[in-house]
Amino acid sequence: MKQIEGGVTAAKGFEAAAATAGIKYQGRADMALVYTKTPAVCAGTFTTNVVKAAPVLWDKEIVAKGDLVHAVVLNSGIANACTGEEGKRLNVAMAAAVADQLQVEKEEVLTASTGVIGMQLPLEPLQKGAALLKEELSGSRAAAAAAAKAIMTTDTVPKEAAVSFDVDGVMVTVGGMSKGSGMIHPNMATMLSVTTTDAAISKEDLQELVSEAVSDSFNMISVDRDTSTNDTYLVLANGESGVMVKKGTKAYEDFRAALFYVSTELAKKMAADGEGATKLLEVKVTGCETEEKAKILSKSVITSNLVKTAVYGSDANWGRILCALGYSGAEFDPEAIDLTLEAGDSSLVLVKDGVATDYREETATELLSKEKVTVICDMKEGNCAATAWGCDLTYDYVKINGDYRS
Amino acid sequence: MKQIEGGVTAAKGFEAAAATAGIKYQGRADMALVYTKTPAVCAGTFTTNVVKAAPVLWDKEIVAKGDLVHAVVLNSGIANACTGEEGKRLNVAMAAAVADQLQVEKEEVLTASTGVIGMQLPLEPLQKGAALLKEELSGSRAAAAAAAKAIMTTDTVPKEAAVSFDVDGVMVTVGGMSKGSGMIHPNMATMLSVTTTDAAISKEDLQELVSEAVSDSFNMISVDRDTSTNDTYLVLANGESGVMVKKGTKAYEDFRAALFYVSTELAKKMAADGEGATKLLEVKVTGCETEEKAKILSKSVITSNLVKTAVYGSDANWGRILCALGYSGAEFDPEAIDLTLEAGDSSLVLVKDGVATDYREETATELLSKEKVTVICDMKEGNCAATAWGCDLTYDYVKINGDYRS
Repeated sequence: MKQIEGGVTAAKGFEAAAATAGIKYQGRADMALVYTKTPAVCAGTFTTNVVKAAPVLWDKEIVAKGDLVHAVVLNSGIANACTGEEGKRLNVAMAAAVADQLQVEKEEVLTASTGVIGMQLPLEPLQKGAALLKEELSGSRAAAAAAAKAIMTTDTVPKEAAVSFDVDGVMVTVGGMSKGSGMIHPNMATMLSVTTTDAAISKEDLQELVSEAVSDSFNMISVDRDTSTNDTYLVLANGESGVMVKKGTKAYEDFRAALFYVSTELAKKMAADGEGATKLLEVKVTGCETEEKAKILSKSVITSNLVKTAVYGSDANWGRILCALGYSGAEFDPEAIDLTLEAGDSSLVLVKDGVATDYREETATELLSKEKVTVICDMKEGNCAATAWGCDLTYDYVKINGDYRS
Repeated sequence: MKQIEGGVTAAKGFEAAAATAGIKYQGRADMALVYTKTPAVCAGTFTTNVVKAAPVLWDKEIVAKGDLVHAVVLNSGIANACTGEEGKRLNVAMAAAVADQLQVEKEEVLTASTGVIGMQLPLEPLQKGAALLKEELSGSRAAAAAAAKAIMTTDTVPKEAAVSFDVDGVMVTVGGMSKGSGMIHPNMATMLSVTTTDAAISKEDLQELVSEAVSDSFNMISVDRDTSTNDTYLVLANGESGVMVKKGTKAYEDFRAALFYVSTELAKKMAADGEGATKLLEVKVTGCETEEKAKILSKSVITSNLVKTAVYGSDANWGRILCALGYSGAEFDPEAIDLTLEAGDSSLVLVKDGVATDYREETATELLSKEKVTVICDMKEGNCAATAWGCDLTYDYVKINGDYRS
């Protein structure tokens, strides 16, 4: 498996485009399109929020039906959530406008929206945008990058990842993009992410792998514990590599690894780019009885506002980590825990058997000042582990969200 | 029932004191004592965090045994949590030092600590403090106020509440104090709160009422979703009013109302004094199928960082409220909800049947700029309701917690 430069156009047969439609933002691209001429099998996972955006309802139905698809159209600026019947109508209009341009059925076009909740999409810009997207479609690296940029809201960097692997001399590629910076606490899915692959795979196998990948990647990050109304993770497989990926083969295992790699990379990039964040916080819980418990414990630490502010202040206030493990809902022996801090090539044991070691605060502060900080919590009760990713809580998070809509 | 000025010394026979022991803070009171010569029935609730501070373990055992008690000694600055066997030994030393001064058994002295996790209490200041507390003991209003002040950490104001009611011409009083500003997401209990009453009541009845009161008051507030290791709520009843409060009597109902009033007032004062907070946020969920569901929904809204930052910015970003209701775990019909904003004497309907009304943003911003803001979510599915209290998330929260220990 080889990491490569690229995003949604890395896999054979996929094209992408971005357009400045003027939906809400002025003077920047705000619509994106991912297209495959060869129809693709599609799997997806969506927000578990009871309040679901119009595009989520649309996609869920299409993915459940299992028909092949040709495209995903995405917009930023307006989330099309809490918009009632009118919102549903405008979402279909967005799919239809793109379908007209591509000369496919509107049910072959998936949709995704991100931005302010409660506002209606404006029809005219959508239609203008659809025409622009058609013109710009290209299989180039630049087209994928432009699409990844067009779906950003408060993100500060576009997020892409791609990887290739070899099956009997034939290259198979998996590449994806995602956006997400605030209202990030994915549950069954992330914010918006589209991943494409030229592998040939059945709908059932793809859905199974996608659900698995999500639980180890997107569902293991959090910026602010707020699960959005629009979380959507779509994977399109058009089979253009000519390689059929079947359960029980090495190709299947390679594809699984590739999909997990891309989803984990995208998830980590979202956590690191959390609204206002200055640091990526990685929490590994090891020595656990079960993996599920390790996940609960690690997520509890990365979502604690008190841990997040301490990381921001480079303060090794490890009591807050033990406190967050303690209220996670999981049972454990507090007097067995070891806590280790890792950053760069250095590591430092803060807690041994539940009480402080005589570590130097200066050393801890130095480690915590790095851009990526890892905390390892060894529960010493078993052999299972899990990793979760989050970020620090800063003045800028408050600034960005104190006045997001203006 | 009449609200009165006062705290833990409002009820007959209770005395209080504060002392500057020099445990961690310099030049301010950091120990407090509540004492009743007449031994008191005691009920309490404690943190559900798996990691429990030494004083919590001590109190739980005493309260479970059900013996009468004489005193509660509290300290601020050091939480005595994650301190192992040495921490337990020092906690007993604190109880014993006070017991020696009061000439009672150490098992008749409850303890409570709040402050930094992981540090050991220093023995000498504890012993010095115990002697000072004994000297200062008084039933005065000022003594109660001094005690309420001594237990503060990042709190900006002391928190007290008291109320009296009449039973056949005899006054019965309930008064309490609490502290709590950060790491506030009580679960079965709050941070530290001691309430006293001169009612005569059985241990069983008192414990039942305390548990009920907690679920409608302390358990309905949150500052940062972090459930502490030290949450302790103790109620001492010494019977000095001579009024026996028995189930099925009007006195019992009056006592219940008094206890609920004091616990709710203290809880609201903690939410309003959340670390860095500028506003009290009250969320009422009405028209719900069950009270439990209304509680889940209202707590989900007050704990959302995105709702909290929007309230800070006086931005009526109601989509975040619907989003937080939606990921609470409770099922409901998003297209039935009405959202109303209330502040002072004004109210404004933001959402009707799940979609925005044509309210004026300027009016909404004006309401949101008040010191106390109420959001009413009418689910229109039943007759149950619940109220939760929180606060806004501000720059100062980040500032306070980015460097709490220094």
